[in-house]
Amino acid sequence: MATVKLSFLQHICKLTGLSRSGRKDELLRRIVDSPIYPTSRVLGIDLGIKNFSYCFASQNEDSKVIIHNWSVENLTEKNGLDIQWTEDFQPSSMADLSIQLFNTLHEKFNPHVILMERQRYRSGIATIPEWTLRVNMLESMLYALHYAEKRNSIEQKIQYPFLLSLSPKSTYSYWASVLNTKASFSKKKSRVQMVKELIDGQKILFENEEALYKWNNGSRVEFKKDDMADSALIASGWMRWQAQLKHYRNFCKQFLKQ
Amino acid sequence: MATVKLSFLQHICKLTGLSRSGRKDELLRRIVDSPIYPTSRVLGIDLGIKNFSYCFASQNEDSKVIIHNWSVENLTEKNGLDIQWTEDFQPSSMADLSIQLFNTLHEKFNPHVILMERQRYRSGIATIPEWTLRVNMLESMLYALHYAEKRNSIEQKIQYPFLLSLSPKSTYSYWASVLNTKASFSKKKSRVQMVKELIDGQKILFENEEALYKWNNGSRVEFKKDDMADSALIASGWMRWQAQLKHYRNFCKQFLKQ
Repeated sequence: MATVKLSFLQHICKLTGLSRSGRKDELLRRIVDSPIYPTSRVLGIDLGIKNFSYCFASQNEDSKVIIHNWSVENLTEKNGLDIQWTEDFQPSSMADLSIQLFNTLHEKFNPHVILMERQRYRSGIATIPEWTLRVNMLESMLYALHYAEKRNSIEQKIQYPFLLSLSPKSTYSYWASVLNTKASFSKKKSRVQMVKELIDGQKILFENEEALYKWNNGSRVEFKKDDMADSALIASGWMRWQAQLKHYRNFCKQFLKQ
Repeated sequence: MATVKLSFLQHICKLTGLSRSGRKDELLRRIVDSPIYPTSRVLGIDLGIKNFSYCFASQNEDSKVIIHNWSVENLTEKNGLDIQWTEDFQPSSMADLSIQLFNTLHEKFNPHVILMERQRYRSGIATIPEWTLRVNMLESMLYALHYAEKRNSIEQKIQYPFLLSLSPKSTYSYWASVLNTKASFSKKKSRVQMVKELIDGQKILFENEEALYKWNNGSRVEFKKDDMADSALIASGWMRWQAQLKHYRNFCKQFLKQ
């Protein structure tokens, strides 16, 4: 009777973005039971206020990632999302910003899946910077708006996008293992370098010149390429997880039955 | 030509919960232009998750505060607001908690004004405790839900409650000056003591026995009286500001005209 090693199951969890903790039967259950989401109209978001980055993409039949729209925006200035907001971090003003952002993302992209990188609770330094609290506020508000709308859509029996919270660690450890690189992912430079390699290696394609233009020439994008890299790594990594999960799920079912 | 002293205007600002910073003409403008809100069906909230305290009250014709409903609830357990939530601080789970809380408060009280004590950004100690971040999340989510509903109500041209963010400092400095006490308001005990005095001095009245019962006999309320005291001080202090503002506004107009 064929058996499967725990280490192999842990590797599958890494390739599918799942948690690697637990016993063998728990990992098997997790791989077989985890939901598989649609990989079209996926909006990967690297949250920020002065550096809000999004990567809107889909997976084609060959499981390649096609980027439709990709940018980093400063929401405190004139921006490509036409959000008008004067920098004021009172709760009521942050609510205004989050409602504008929430409505704009839905109207502009009509996404099937929204991926938000989970905001760190502790920044590892002595005090949590004010900015972390502010971006936390934005994250919280976007979640509240999403789940309030989700409730309405359930009552009206209409389809509504998924909103998934991804841990930065799962995204970066995935890419480190797939690209077999020792580069430390906490370093912004290595993440930018990685996306360059994915583009050069045609692992990431572009639906239009404009999306690539911003990455290559965007005026202020130069210093903020890491935020663009992050939103692309979030979206493309997650879509590859779904493809892997489809594959390994069937493979693993055999071990559950026995 | 009668003039008014800056110090007197600063005192008026303290009695009306307004900021005391700025020049004489700025303070005068602030006193005369600040909106006066209705003081019926006022819901004062001292935010918390394990200690969520609310004080639902109105001001009667003699400007006395009448408490209709007053409690402190642990939202992670069976509670008087019938909120069912298992303790999990992921954004999606916090969104569920805030939506339940938001809907319950509106359905149960149908408030005209909601007062929320502004959450501190910095706790003054080395790191911001996880709990501060969690309560910050709840605050942010409640604001987002409120302003999203407010937008809908404006579109449908229907009345919608006010949501006001109060700084703890303005509430406590007001009560310290009105009760002429040197007690330090950062001490929970002095705030509990103050509410006792207000109740004994019939400055705070009760519409029903039940609201007072919880303060005097609530099983777990004993150690959490300070949260009940805070929600009462928020609501009652704010209502007295409105009454004072009505009075001083007319008084101050004369100085503006000259």
